[in-house]
Amino acid sequence: MDLKVELKKRADFFNTQLEKFLAKGDPEKLYDATRHLPLAGGKRLRPVLSMLACESVKGDVIKVVPLSIALELVHNFTLVHDDIMDKSKLRRGLPSVHIKYGEPTAIIAGDLLFTKAFESMHNTEDDASTFKNVEFGLIDCIREICEGQQMDMDFEQRKNVTEEEYIEMIRKKTAVFFQYAAEAGAILGGGSTQQISALNQYGLNLGVGFQIWDDYLDLSSDEKTLGKDIGNDIRNGKKTLIACHCLSNIKGEDKKLFNEIFGNLKATDEQVKKVHDLFKKTGSIDYAKNKAIGFVDSAKRSLLVMPTSEAKDILTSLADYVITRKK
Amino acid sequence: MDLKVELKKRADFFNTQLEKFLAKGDPEKLYDATRHLPLAGGKRLRPVLSMLACESVKGDVIKVVPLSIALELVHNFTLVHDDIMDKSKLRRGLPSVHIKYGEPTAIIAGDLLFTKAFESMHNTEDDASTFKNVEFGLIDCIREICEGQQMDMDFEQRKNVTEEEYIEMIRKKTAVFFQYAAEAGAILGGGSTQQISALNQYGLNLGVGFQIWDDYLDLSSDEKTLGKDIGNDIRNGKKTLIACHCLSNIKGEDKKLFNEIFGNLKATDEQVKKVHDLFKKTGSIDYAKNKAIGFVDSAKRSLLVMPTSEAKDILTSLADYVITRKK
Repeated sequence: MDLKVELKKRADFFNTQLEKFLAKGDPEKLYDATRHLPLAGGKRLRPVLSMLACESVKGDVIKVVPLSIALELVHNFTLVHDDIMDKSKLRRGLPSVHIKYGEPTAIIAGDLLFTKAFESMHNTEDDASTFKNVEFGLIDCIREICEGQQMDMDFEQRKNVTEEEYIEMIRKKTAVFFQYAAEAGAILGGGSTQQISALNQYGLNLGVGFQIWDDYLDLSSDEKTLGKDIGNDIRNGKKTLIACHCLSNIKGEDKKLFNEIFGNLKATDEQVKKVHDLFKKTGSIDYAKNKAIGFVDSAKRSLLVMPTSEAKDILTSLADYVITRKK
Repeated sequence: MDLKVELKKRADFFNTQLEKFLAKGDPEKLYDATRHLPLAGGKRLRPVLSMLACESVKGDVIKVVPLSIALELVHNFTLVHDDIMDKSKLRRGLPSVHIKYGEPTAIIAGDLLFTKAFESMHNTEDDASTFKNVEFGLIDCIREICEGQQMDMDFEQRKNVTEEEYIEMIRKKTAVFFQYAAEAGAILGGGSTQQISALNQYGLNLGVGFQIWDDYLDLSSDEKTLGKDIGNDIRNGKKTLIACHCLSNIKGEDKKLFNEIFGNLKATDEQVKKVHDLFKKTGSIDYAKNKAIGFVDSAKRSLLVMPTSEAKDILTSLADYVITRKK
């Protein structure tokens, strides 16, 4: 089994469905802005995860098409609004929506993506009661994502953040959505309670590992590889696991240097590099890397109760991919 | 029957339900920002409309509590995001959410209000199939509100907007929501197809009349009465019915003056007054006033098929109130 081929097969299927769903419309500018990011590609991890969860309980993948579209649109709605908040200029190698279409239209485009996600959910063919149950999970998820995003911003204003607080923040901001994607895929696929619960735990741990790895990548690659502004995290004083770990392991001059640069929006590239060097000196980058690996191991262990299937193998490989990917 | 007393009775009942639903939460800053506007009062027209529609078909008003909360939260979510886009500093006599809590938190607070609206809808006690039907109406409404908001902004960039285009814009931006509030209230109250359709038309025409009257009020009162920045509409070049009518009825020097000031963000108070004088000279303010009255007359005519009830009397009075209110 070739993971890349298997993921691409599902992402391609998903892309066809998404393009069909996210048609052009009036006012043209709003629909162009709304389509800009979702149709610019991306890993499609959340939709593919819901498809694999469905397959792993022997469900027909067609049943999760509306869910998978909703997942990707919600993800994109948060990215569009996050980019405004973070003043990020690039996303997926393209100008962010607010850069290309202006902030007012970007705000509405995010709102419309949110709306279209629920519109897609309504195409779920299950009985109204299952639909209601699964849709409520999505609503609950978005609430936690909003809370996680605010926690992330609050952390930027604080001197110290504990590792536990950081994990709780990324659980809300990122992991609940993976958790929901896997769980909802299993519910719509007709999985047993045990299977639904196993996939729920798989998604949760995968999501935490994924986010820690993302933070790790932000600080171990260059702009060309990542397609977004590097150094943003350091300039914004983003309390990633790496920063939390580093800060609790430095003293004296190092600490003074760190506090001068970290969170300073006007820090030069050279200064950013100095903080980056401190991260390396304290072993914080490796620490985060190993944490990510630990969460992903837990994710893989959750799959033990699942019946043998190609989808199960892919989910296992996907977990490994999350902590080996370079972008 | 005293309209004010009847509206207040229902608004008070609604406020108690809303306060119970919109509890404090963590992160504190986000929940404070989320509660800021909805708990700052307001006319509660949309919730009260859904309650009256329910009552007018002899339904138990308790059945529309989740809907009425959802309506008010969606309305507030659009206000929070609109105020960011319009850079409005005041709302309901208080600082706008983005002024008080900063733009990033205001964006998320809007998103959370959106989420909480759907959370509230899920408390609907009807069968899952009716719930699904009514909830889809809300989704469709929000899509149209987003489209209307973009049309409004697009119009600001255009030289001319026809009256028909203007009416279509406010239909989407404002009236569909009144239409939905009345229709959904009637559905959940157990109304007949004819009654549901009558209330749908009542809401639609009331909404169009309401918005035209709002634009009329913006240009015929002062900051103290309205609690928001006067002159904003003229400085932003907002194509209200008044502006559309005025522009199509002026020539020569007047037109030159108009084009110099209208849409000029740096226009002085004195210049704003000059455009306001042109509005009066062309009779555009009265023209809009009479249009609003016409739509409200249509709304009242829709009620003819409804059985006699106190709620029907209130809906009739409410229509009259919409075009006599001073704020």
